[in-house]
Amino acid sequence: MAAARATAQIGVTGLAVMGRNLARNLARHGFTVAVHNRSPGRTRGLLAEHGDEGTFVPSESMADFVATLERPRAVIVMVKAGAPTDAVIDELVPLLEAGDIVVDCGNAHFTDTIRREEALRGHGLHFVGTGVSGGEEGALHGPSIMPGGSDESYRKLGPIFEKIAAQVDGVPCCRHIGPDGAGHFVKMVHNGIEYADMQLIAEAYDLLRAGLSAGPAELAKIFRRWNDGELESFLIEITADVLAHTDAATGRPFVDVVLDQAEQKGTGRWTVQSALDLGVPITGIAEATFARSLSGHADQRAAARRAFPDAGGNWQVDDRETFVEDVRRALLASKIVAYAQGFDHIRAGSREYDWGVDLGGTATIWRGGCIIRARFLDRIRQAYDTEPELPTLLVAPWFAEQVSAGVPAWRRVVADAARAGVPTPAFSSSLAYFDALRAQRLPAALIQGLRDNFGAHTYRRVDRDGSFHTRWAADRAEEAA
Amino acid sequence: MAAARATAQIGVTGLAVMGRNLARNLARHGFTVAVHNRSPGRTRGLLAEHGDEGTFVPSESMADFVATLERPRAVIVMVKAGAPTDAVIDELVPLLEAGDIVVDCGNAHFTDTIRREEALRGHGLHFVGTGVSGGEEGALHGPSIMPGGSDESYRKLGPIFEKIAAQVDGVPCCRHIGPDGAGHFVKMVHNGIEYADMQLIAEAYDLLRAGLSAGPAELAKIFRRWNDGELESFLIEITADVLAHTDAATGRPFVDVVLDQAEQKGTGRWTVQSALDLGVPITGIAEATFARSLSGHADQRAAARRAFPDAGGNWQVDDRETFVEDVRRALLASKIVAYAQGFDHIRAGSREYDWGVDLGGTATIWRGGCIIRARFLDRIRQAYDTEPELPTLLVAPWFAEQVSAGVPAWRRVVADAARAGVPTPAFSSSLAYFDALRAQRLPAALIQGLRDNFGAHTYRRVDRDGSFHTRWAADRAEEAA
Repeated sequence: MAAARATAQIGVTGLAVMGRNLARNLARHGFTVAVHNRSPGRTRGLLAEHGDEGTFVPSESMADFVATLERPRAVIVMVKAGAPTDAVIDELVPLLEAGDIVVDCGNAHFTDTIRREEALRGHGLHFVGTGVSGGEEGALHGPSIMPGGSDESYRKLGPIFEKIAAQVDGVPCCRHIGPDGAGHFVKMVHNGIEYADMQLIAEAYDLLRAGLSAGPAELAKIFRRWNDGELESFLIEITADVLAHTDAATGRPFVDVVLDQAEQKGTGRWTVQSALDLGVPITGIAEATFARSLSGHADQRAAARRAFPDAGGNWQVDDRETFVEDVRRALLASKIVAYAQGFDHIRAGSREYDWGVDLGGTATIWRGGCIIRARFLDRIRQAYDTEPELPTLLVAPWFAEQVSAGVPAWRRVVADAARAGVPTPAFSSSLAYFDALRAQRLPAALIQGLRDNFGAHTYRRVDRDGSFHTRWAADRAEEAA
Repeated sequence: MAAARATAQIGVTGLAVMGRNLARNLARHGFTVAVHNRSPGRTRGLLAEHGDEGTFVPSESMADFVATLERPRAVIVMVKAGAPTDAVIDELVPLLEAGDIVVDCGNAHFTDTIRREEALRGHGLHFVGTGVSGGEEGALHGPSIMPGGSDESYRKLGPIFEKIAAQVDGVPCCRHIGPDGAGHFVKMVHNGIEYADMQLIAEAYDLLRAGLSAGPAELAKIFRRWNDGELESFLIEITADVLAHTDAATGRPFVDVVLDQAEQKGTGRWTVQSALDLGVPITGIAEATFARSLSGHADQRAAARRAFPDAGGNWQVDDRETFVEDVRRALLASKIVAYAQGFDHIRAGSREYDWGVDLGGTATIWRGGCIIRARFLDRIRQAYDTEPELPTLLVAPWFAEQVSAGVPAWRRVVADAARAGVPTPAFSSSLAYFDALRAQRLPAALIQGLRDNFGAHTYRRVDRDGSFHTRWAADRAEEAA
């Protein structure tokens, strides 16, 4: 092991696959990288396998690791969220000095990040909760990076992170999101949108399969074609890839041998819980999250299959070309709703916590590196750059045009799915959201009337200000509340 | 004021309308009721206006109030949830003795109730978080009461609460739900179901109005008729009442002068957040909660109306009678889904917190007194009494029959709404839930394939146990994970 001299520009502690790949990415870009892992075998393995990719400075103890870092020190913590992260922070803090920077690149909940930032600020340290998207491959070849924390910390980290991030049109997929928990919050919403996007793709696949009576290989071709148009994105690309794949063991389409119970790691759930607190209707993400839960309830599903063997409807697609195009249009429109909701959520969070998040900037750094990277994101960047106070993405010109052009197809697809018995929770929820948002009047007026009737909760009127109550159980006169 | 002698069987502190009505209900049933309020004006007002309804023992200080109670003392706290409740508890605890009982009848979050119960247990006191539903009228004339807390506390409280609760077929709408937070948890889910029920009614109204081009007064008649069948319930009854009401100031239908922005007090949100933690898909309650949020975003709605003036579809109802019956069938089927989801949520909470909640018993005490009281609840009681381990309410014979009979109508209504542009988030989400639950295969398999492709999250197979990963970026061989 190298002697402890302060030569490293940045350090990584926690060398499981994500940490290792981030460290390699840093070294490949010419940074001298201090590396450390609780069990030193991983550190030695990294050096043995990839030591020639750049300059690594390995240490076996945390104290030696810290001693190898130039000041102000910047330490990336890449361990499991929750207690393991707190344990590493507790170990680091006494070894650091005022002005040093602790970077948490794990998937922390943003409220934990707010708490940790405050605690470390008390020690004169910067704590930078940083969202990193792109999986293992992204970490190595260029992720999308969403750092929170102080402006001062970004002056040190920015030049490093912007270099190792994905680049799109010469622009790095990294920018300073805002103070304390802003980075992890935005990463959380990114993952929520990813849930919605995947559920919509899954529904489109299910619809096409039922409507066309086609196999996965044929459907792969459709997704590959879609990837040449407005839907062009990493997720559509790998959908084609997965659908085209054949299971070697059985010779059957791969997707048909995979158990149809989706799993989740919790960020979809966090996103919906936060949106509920903030009063932002993110129905697409909620339906996607619940669709995964539902898929895992095997006993209930078996019981329902037994009880309703013939509950499906009939479906015959007459014009296959029109149908495929309808599904594409419906997918695009539903996807626009999901992103509109996600960006509303970021705006609401930014207002609540006073983060000043730039929505166009957020779209900019999602154009590459991350799981939801897509041509589409550049349209979102344009929309918010042109009109930062856009009330909803749905009304930005390009998006409004796509939605308007797609509405008849969207209606046909949702109606056909309902008739045929193909479950499309996210497609239909997105259409309902669109129709509710553009409605002249909502039946929420009746709900307010009911609430006043049974609970004296009062209501407002369309024709004058104030709150009112009708004395339902007495003379039915109205009184100001 | 009366001298402080320990003659009262139960006490109420907090005499706003709910506390006052609970105290009156207790007194009317022959209990001697100690009453107290922070500002004594309310106590005096209660005695002056209703002192002749029974035996009240008023006190102006908390110490005197406690002194008027027989041991073990039972004190109902009826103040605002959150800090005010904690403040009253802190004032009470030093005045009480081991074995005394503090009853929180406010709308506390069940996790606060778990915390308080534990804290008071440390003082040798019982803390009984109790859900009370039925609004002001219910509190006075017979609410539905859902007490949590210890068995021992219920031995004192049960005979009192069961007497003042609503009675249905000679059975009181009160039973011991389970330990610590069980009562408030079940009350929370009750309120969540109430959200879904109201949203479904609102969507039915909206559909009927659009499809029939009929006014509220005519629609009131339809709801009144529905109240004679399977939909018979308090909410359907007051829907007819509200729709039939004319605004005196304008002469217009009342529902048309009410602002169409629904408000909420947070229990819908809590319900969905808890269900996300427990992995229970309660899509109906979620859509209802988000529909209220959406209705309040006036700026977004105005922008969407401007951007999409002609996005609605066409709709012509040919056979009015069939259409009305279709909507009734769809409403009943969607309502069954909402209740099935709510009862799943209670079961999951009961398992998670080891509460042993009796689902049939819960349905029993919702048959009267509470906002969602309905004939329907007796069917739920029967279903869970007959088969306590029922995998989902949807497959219990009566419910399965109603759903099966309603499926074609449900499909027509959801399809028509999608085509016409009438937003039906809860109707269509419930149908999607039903179709997903009974599906032979879900596209969740594709989602698992995508997750493995981009994040090596692994998948399970349909044909053998274990977790697997395909080396997508390399030789595409499968390996055990």
